[in-house]
Amino acid sequence: MAVRAAVAGASGYAGGEVLRLLLGHPEVEVGALTGHSNAGQTLGGLQPHLVPLAGRVLEPTTAEVLAGHDVVFLALPHGQSAAVAEQLGDDVLVVDMGADFRLKDSADWERFYGSPHAGTWPYGLPELPGARAALEGAKRVAVPGCYPTAVSLALFPAYAAGLAEPEAVIVAATGTSGAGKALKPHLLGSEVMGSMSPYGVGGGHRHTPEMMQNLGAVAGEPVTVSFTPTLAPMARGILATCSARAKPGTTAEDVRAAYTKAYADEPFVHLLPEGRWPATASVHGSNAVQVQVALDATAGRVIAVSAIDNLTKGTAGGAVQSMNIALGLPEDTGLSTIGVAP
Amino acid sequence: MAVRAAVAGASGYAGGEVLRLLLGHPEVEVGALTGHSNAGQTLGGLQPHLVPLAGRVLEPTTAEVLAGHDVVFLALPHGQSAAVAEQLGDDVLVVDMGADFRLKDSADWERFYGSPHAGTWPYGLPELPGARAALEGAKRVAVPGCYPTAVSLALFPAYAAGLAEPEAVIVAATGTSGAGKALKPHLLGSEVMGSMSPYGVGGGHRHTPEMMQNLGAVAGEPVTVSFTPTLAPMARGILATCSARAKPGTTAEDVRAAYTKAYADEPFVHLLPEGRWPATASVHGSNAVQVQVALDATAGRVIAVSAIDNLTKGTAGGAVQSMNIALGLPEDTGLSTIGVAP
Amino acid sequence: MAVRAAVAGASGYAGGEVLRLLLGHPEVEVGALTGHSNAGQTLGGLQPHLVPLAGRVLEPTTAEVLAGHDVVFLALPHGQSAAVAEQLGDDVLVVDMGADFRLKDSADWERFYGSPHAGTWPYGLPELPGARAALEGAKRVAVPGCYPTAVSLALFPAYAAGLAEPEAVIVAATGTSGAGKALKPHLLGSEVMGSMSPYGVGGGHRHTPEMMQNLGAVAGEPVTVSFTPTLAPMARGILATCSARAKPGTTAEDVRAAYTKAYADEPFVHLLPEGRWPATASVHGSNAVQVQVALDATAGRVIAVSAIDNLTKGTAGGAVQSMNIALGLPEDTGLSTIGVAP
Amino acid sequence: MAVRAAVAGASGYAGGEVLRLLLGHPEVEVGALTGHSNAGQTLGGLQPHLVPLAGRVLEPTTAEVLAGHDVVFLALPHGQSAAVAEQLGDDVLVVDMGADFRLKDSADWERFYGSPHAGTWPYGLPELPGARAALEGAKRVAVPGCYPTAVSLALFPAYAAGLAEPEAVIVAATGTSGAGKALKPHLLGSEVMGSMSPYGVGGGHRHTPEMMQNLGAVAGEPVTVSFTPTLAPMARGILATCSARAKPGTTAEDVRAAYTKAYADEPFVHLLPEGRWPATASVHGSNAVQVQVALDATAGRVIAVSAIDNLTKGTAGGAVQSMNIALGLPEDTGLSTIGVAP
Repeated sequence: MAVRAAVAGASGYAGGEVLRLLLGHPEVEVGALTGHSNAGQTLGGLQPHLVPLAGRVLEPTTAEVLAGHDVVFLALPHGQSAAVAEQLGDDVLVVDMGADFRLKDSADWERFYGSPHAGTWPYGLPELPGARAALEGAKRVAVPGCYPTAVSLALFPAYAAGLAEPEAVIVAATGTSGAGKALKPHLLGSEVMGSMSPYGVGGGHRHTPEMMQNLGAVAGEPVTVSFTPTLAPMARGILATCSARAKPGTTAEDVRAAYTKAYADEPFVHLLPEGRWPATASVHGSNAVQVQVALDATAGRVIAVSAIDNLTKGTAGGAVQSMNIALGLPEDTGLSTIGVAP
Repeated sequence: MAVRAAVAGASGYAGGEVLRLLLGHPEVEVGALTGHSNAGQTLGGLQPHLVPLAGRVLEPTTAEVLAGHDVVFLALPHGQSAAVAEQLGDDVLVVDMGADFRLKDSADWERFYGSPHAGTWPYGLPELPGARAALEGAKRVAVPGCYPTAVSLALFPAYAAGLAEPEAVIVAATGTSGAGKALKPHLLGSEVMGSMSPYGVGGGHRHTPEMMQNLGAVAGEPVTVSFTPTLAPMARGILATCSARAKPGTTAEDVRAAYTKAYADEPFVHLLPEGRWPATASVHGSNAVQVQVALDATAGRVIAVSAIDNLTKGTAGGAVQSMNIALGLPEDTGLSTIGVAP
Repeated sequence: MAVRAAVAGASGYAGGEVLRLLLGHPEVEVGALTGHSNAGQTLGGLQPHLVPLAGRVLEPTTAEVLAGHDVVFLALPHGQSAAVAEQLGDDVLVVDMGADFRLKDSADWERFYGSPHAGTWPYGLPELPGARAALEGAKRVAVPGCYPTAVSLALFPAYAAGLAEPEAVIVAATGTSGAGKALKPHLLGSEVMGSMSPYGVGGGHRHTPEMMQNLGAVAGEPVTVSFTPTLAPMARGILATCSARAKPGTTAEDVRAAYTKAYADEPFVHLLPEGRWPATASVHGSNAVQVQVALDATAGRVIAVSAIDNLTKGTAGGAVQSMNIALGLPEDTGLSTIGVAP
Repeated sequence: MAVRAAVAGASGYAGGEVLRLLLGHPEVEVGALTGHSNAGQTLGGLQPHLVPLAGRVLEPTTAEVLAGHDVVFLALPHGQSAAVAEQLGDDVLVVDMGADFRLKDSADWERFYGSPHAGTWPYGLPELPGARAALEGAKRVAVPGCYPTAVSLALFPAYAAGLAEPEAVIVAATGTSGAGKALKPHLLGSEVMGSMSPYGVGGGHRHTPEMMQNLGAVAGEPVTVSFTPTLAPMARGILATCSARAKPGTTAEDVRAAYTKAYADEPFVHLLPEGRWPATASVHGSNAVQVQVALDATAGRVIAVSAIDNLTKGTAGGAVQSMNIALGLPEDTGLSTIGVAP
């Protein structure tokens, strides 16, 4: 094993998931693990499913601890990654699973995050046009948000082919792990089981400008996004239901052809056969993306639906996929397209 | 107790729910219960939660069995209600929880249901403009579909106030009881737990024309509906996320005022205080509807969200509410606005 | 309405459930509602399912606020009820849903709760031999723990009839609401969905001595209880699987007869017909108890299983049932045996 | 890749899980896949999570189709494996995931299965004393039942060390996938979500004699088992809560030492540190077993709890582990101890 990897923020769900994947990655050796309030504790009590690491002790998140690795994964609250990355130096690959380096527009960043913009790093969604090339040999990677991953992969082929008007309407359901391990009343099991509810309605969710950035770049014109996230009674998974008015003259064949072309050679994105629709269970724990698309002739809209595992392809799997590209490893090393179902 | 009620189709989820409500209705006495393949069985094994009726035997669904009641609730597969109703005579109140008499447009009916149109009955969604008056003294009631109930109550105030363009985009999540007790592989617990998936995508769901009918009538112009239903890992509940472009010049105050006015005097529909959003758990087992609305200034859309219990307000509660109106009883008799939560 | 009721601790699950029941109780008017850290907040944000009380403001839990009611329900952390009750005076009915006054043995109390024993009040499980009479006219009621309710009703008929050896083995599964609204990592939705886990294994759960007290009193000899609670991925419900060696010569008919006799006249406990087994969904939101029993001839054990809703019959429903008896109202006033299922 | 594997019964949950594992096994190539009523269909619609096999067509289950493989996994209804195995010849490794060859006692078999006993094959639970050696080089393997796997691993160390009386009491909760894909009303999502219920109570479950066989062999005397399975609202996982009276003089240290010794060198069974208890989520999708044990001094019982994934270690993982041993591969090839959590 040649690649030594450290994980900062190893006690949360994103940190746990990247460790789960790294433990199965044939080229990676797991190095330092750090935490904040949990520093000093063993991982066994915090991530009981990561049996091989049960005895490992979390260290504090400092440059000293993280130094000396080939790759450092950051699973930190937004606003903290820049300082850590700076201290690590330019020869270390830093993969940020947080939001800090995703947005190009400083005004967007400041409006949605309320703090100074740290910059922009190569964007870890290789399926987007041009993104894969930018990741090759990169030393910094900004992993996309989980919702922008699901939404961009559902809709970009329609925009790339010029088939959709630039006003997208998106409703997505997410498993509760997307909200992290924060102890908030509405995340208690008693509250979420048997219940669906929306949040961040009306344009306020921080992932909205990231979706607009991705779709607008592909469309070659600004794309407005109406995004409503909902919390679903499941631990993992995102189902994104996305639509936009079809451009005049668009046929069902045009739509099918656009998606077939976009995903013909992608190892992780699967355009389903006609008549079958994505289900989050099918991609549970895997880096696969299921996509399906239809043209609603009556409503005049392209309807695209994608399913991902928010923690895998939506966070840690996308991070490992990007690491593989950055390091010149085969892109699917240590990653699976096989869901754990039922 | 003066009102004797029969239920045809008492072994399914809609039949069970109307019985649950009728058992708590102070003016109703439960009469004949019928089934099809389950005729001859006791209800105890089919609806184990209906303890007071455990010993009742299901009879076959015939006019003889259903005769002699003041009200007959029909929970039958579509296409069967007309023949039963005809035999019952005009002095019996027939409340159809199926689809047969909801649509006014025969062409719509035939396109979506593939059989001859049976007609149109007074529509059991009293909150819609004009609907309550049409139910008073009625002898026939068509209970709305569960999705059209949720969607119409989420969006009609915007259309009634002329604030929304006539192209609605709707994504709704439903609990599995909406699909009934049919034994289909995708409804197995192993398949639905931990999974979200769409179905009937692209305009094919049978509830779509019913939504268009309701919203178009309120808007005074045809309203196109793009409707995507999704199956959620919960037994009950519908969360409908609905949006439409705001008409030019619409302000957040306009939107708030329209909804406040629409629901000021409705006993079952609760416009939530600003900042709080509906959750299906809050209306579990109750006839209440939670509604919230926002104006997304960036996307230029009105976003309205409603939560109902698909079996209660979405089916059997709406049926009992309509029966109360038809019989001249206080509208909320035997109905609750208190959810069983958590 | 003649009976004015106050609820101390109205923001938690037990407090919310007693309010849900009191709102449907024809003889009760809801008076003061109190909270601790939530005092000053409206109930709408804390208990969004209690629509009719949405605007009510929580007051601090003081004797002044609670004075002037006919009944005061206490849903407080253990150790706090005695002081409150003392200040309320002897003419007010105080129904304690906490643990303080359940145990008769001071040593048991001190061993399991680590504080001085406050005393013993009439025990709110009227189905136990002698318990109903003690509740009539009572001014103080100790509502049983949720697990002891389920376990005592499953096993006492076997002990009352002298059919079981005095060593009971109990494994119970509970919904997460049994753990309350405390913000603990293991109660997050992400952790509980899809998972079963035990806790308090090895005799440490505080409900153990209460079960031994109940069963021992019925058996006329000390009964040892091995109790293992498990947390199940559901919000409500307890399924208690209980067994004990059958006394020599016990037949299946003896067992059946004992349970038939014990529950012949009980309004809330339903011995199921042979061949059917309890399910927590069947009693969801109701005060009903489902019980079934079998004799395992090979293992030589009586196996009794009960299902309750932990918040209803297990807490707030038992409290209201006891209040009804104490006040001389019909025992089932405001209580239902009909579950909200599916 | 040297080992060619066929799977008979590839459309069910056991067949799907063994395929999921074989796809990740570095030494195995997936050969023929067969089905019964699904023969002729592609796997994509039946097992949508097995993306790499989506286009594979199920063939009928015949000796011709299954011939020419190094290993054949059988996931067939009981009673069908003997005929298939006979036709395959003695040089093919046949791993039966069904019940046919688990029991040694013909009378037990006939009493619980109602058909002639087919025989006994080497038993695929290598952690049991002597079992691993019997699997080395074997050409026939009987994979244990999912419950016997969980129960035997929870209890055998206590019996092996002579610390427990020969009357075990077991209550286990299982995810619904344990019941397979059969279309039965009680397995519908609407019925299982939010509900716990027992089945096969009173000694009737077919896995009971298998537990007695395993524990009795270790104890050196017959062990009586009282076994109550319960259905939990989750797709995967078994939590087995097992207990037996401690033999006189047994100390907590004795118990701890027995379990520490039993599992010191086992790659898949993890005795948790004191104070932590198993959770099924921690082993989701993995071949790991979590075990914990306590001595309840008051009740005088040893309480042992285990968590497994019923489809992985409980069925297909145990099958692959046994295959590895039989073929002389490292025992953990293609198997993981890392759960997919949360």
